Amino acid sequence: MAICFLSPLKAITPTTSLTTSLNPKKPNILRCNFSLPIITTTEPEPVFTSVRSFAPATVANLGPGFDFLGCAVDGLGDFVSLRVDPSVHPGELSISDISGTKNLSKNPLNNCAGIAAIATMKILNIRSVGLSLSLEKGLPLGSGLGSSAASAAAAAVAVNELFGRKLEVKDLVLAGLESEAKVSGYHADNIAPAIMGGFVLIRSYDPLELMSLQFPVEKDLIFVLVSPDFEAPTKKMRAALPAEIGMSHHVWNCSQAGALVASVLQGDLVGLGKALSSDRIVEPKRAPLIPGMVGVKKAALEAGAFGCTISGAGPTAVAVVDSEDRGVEVGERMVEAFWKEGNLKAVAMVKRLDRVGARLVGSVPR
Amino acid sequence: MAICFLSPLKAITPTTSLTTSLNPKKPNILRCNFSLPIITTTEPEPVFTSVRSFAPATVANLGPGFDFLGCAVDGLGDFVSLRVDPSVHPGELSISDISGTKNLSKNPLNNCAGIAAIATMKILNIRSVGLSLSLEKGLPLGSGLGSSAASAAAAAVAVNELFGRKLEVKDLVLAGLESEAKVSGYHADNIAPAIMGGFVLIRSYDPLELMSLQFPVEKDLIFVLVSPDFEAPTKKMRAALPAEIGMSHHVWNCSQAGALVASVLQGDLVGLGKALSSDRIVEPKRAPLIPGMVGVKKAALEAGAFGCTISGAGPTAVAVVDSEDRGVEVGERMVEAFWKEGNLKAVAMVKRLDRVGARLVGSVPR
Repeated sequence: MAICFLSPLKAITPTTSLTTSLNPKKPNILRCNFSLPIITTTEPEPVFTSVRSFAPATVANLGPGFDFLGCAVDGLGDFVSLRVDPSVHPGELSISDISGTKNLSKNPLNNCAGIAAIATMKILNIRSVGLSLSLEKGLPLGSGLGSSAASAAAAAVAVNELFGRKLEVKDLVLAGLESEAKVSGYHADNIAPAIMGGFVLIRSYDPLELMSLQFPVEKDLIFVLVSPDFEAPTKKMRAALPAEIGMSHHVWNCSQAGALVASVLQGDLVGLGKALSSDRIVEPKRAPLIPGMVGVKKAALEAGAFGCTISGAGPTAVAVVDSEDRGVEVGERMVEAFWKEGNLKAVAMVKRLDRVGARLVGSVPR
Repeated sequence: MAICFLSPLKAITPTTSLTTSLNPKKPNILRCNFSLPIITTTEPEPVFTSVRSFAPATVANLGPGFDFLGCAVDGLGDFVSLRVDPSVHPGELSISDISGTKNLSKNPLNNCAGIAAIATMKILNIRSVGLSLSLEKGLPLGSGLGSSAASAAAAAVAVNELFGRKLEVKDLVLAGLESEAKVSGYHADNIAPAIMGGFVLIRSYDPLELMSLQFPVEKDLIFVLVSPDFEAPTKKMRAALPAEIGMSHHVWNCSQAGALVASVLQGDLVGLGKALSSDRIVEPKRAPLIPGMVGVKKAALEAGAFGCTISGAGPTAVAVVDSEDRGVEVGERMVEAFWKEGNLKAVAMVKRLDRVGARLVGSVPR
């Protein structure tokens, strides 16, 4: 690893949204190629000495949106600080520091942030500058809140911002996918909303097509995220999935997926919650593997949540409400249920929909 | 059958929309009970001597919307004339005339319009008035354009209008479902859009929940419907469906269903067409059973259609375009392909989205 010295970061740039570059009058679809694109024109120069970025937590699957739908959650996520470092070999990246967890490798090739940063440097064709990256984990690992995607998204955005924001959103998602592929499979339902914010539908992978689904700006959407002290056995969670699905269940889940998308676009919280709760294929197989989850969902609905399901592959439970007060109440009931029904301690958080996605939060000019 | 005399019908009421009763500010969801509701209060009196109604053709399935999504097509459908008839036993219905086809029974219990009209009379609790119904088929039978649903929708609406429009849309759909259940199974993906117009997502049956999906009013959506001279063997078409679906195909079709719904609501014709064409589960099994269908789809896309699939269970092919001129061109290519690839004569029609649904088109006051 290269020698590290941390630059003092100064927030001189207001929080900026990557998604603002999407023309709101055009349907929000991004199409790009499957393989990692490489910009072969002039190598860009860094416009900052250092930058600091943030990427939010994400909730993937969303019940019937299994493996193709995810959304971002505000006020919870990972930070990346990135700086030009003459002590790092030109064209290479070093991870100087990781805080917030002890379980991550500082080898950039074995670290989500490292892989995504290197992929972004590759797309930008960076050969003359070495970089040092510092990762601050705000998200617990393996919680079902898109921890790896948040690190990757923050890293990809940091590299792009450092070199003058040359890349499009699609390139950043592809860079993040390089990382996700190593950690949890080539799935974009966390990395795409982590970068783009809001709800994102993964329409296809070859070519990668992403649809941004805008929840109406005038409406509030609040998530209750309850994480139990339990390690969801990833292999077991994946193995629990049925290989074949009966036609009636397929039609049911398809219709609920359609209803979920319509509810998001129409800002219909009741409909959204109902769709979230409606999965008949994945949740019924996975919920019994998380102690107390069935009772937690019941408790959330009884306490007034519009809907509840497993976040990602778990073990976090996610419920949807329309006010923070209601969210606190629902969260307490869910924590109680995890303890009573699953003998698990749990922590509840009440968070809003993140509409921005990964963003620059600080920078030091050259 | 009762003696029949046809009243001259005079269009004194402008075309009215049933869907206008839906509050546009509320999410367009209808929830109702599974069983046929019966109004047990005062029996309503007829407010007209006779009425005439129209209900449009419908395209069900729409590719990945299999069994839960349908839309209505303007300028193509069935008419029902209904009148108070003292010669018919009070509380009963007689079918006096059927034109446009020779293959339908005049026994009201074996006729789509008859069953739906009687179900509507039952919901309204009509016991004191006998009715005569005349059916004008504008739609060919077994074409995949919702012929039975159009007859049922027109009949249900005619009865409701004759007695002063006492029922809600949900009741009319339930009455129509009584008819569909006898003809093609308890599926609402034709009858719901035939009654409500536009795109309708069938969210659940118990209770029946319908979501109206509004395609933006400022945009044109044009269908090319190409019906070959071929009887799609219904049993064979149903038997061709797989009982079990692999997880990857399920996820793919679910995501396309979500993309289809989003494209409808966002008025994204390219996205809508692409989703229409994307079904990997039903169309690949059914298309080979309709001679030439695979080539017809190819021809439609090559001629500039945004998407193409089988309408309902076929044999009609449906393509989507954005102008009538393009529609005529695409239709010609599709007709040619049916002849060249399937050795079938075919007829092309170019029609707009129907946004109104079943409606009163004439009435004679008492």
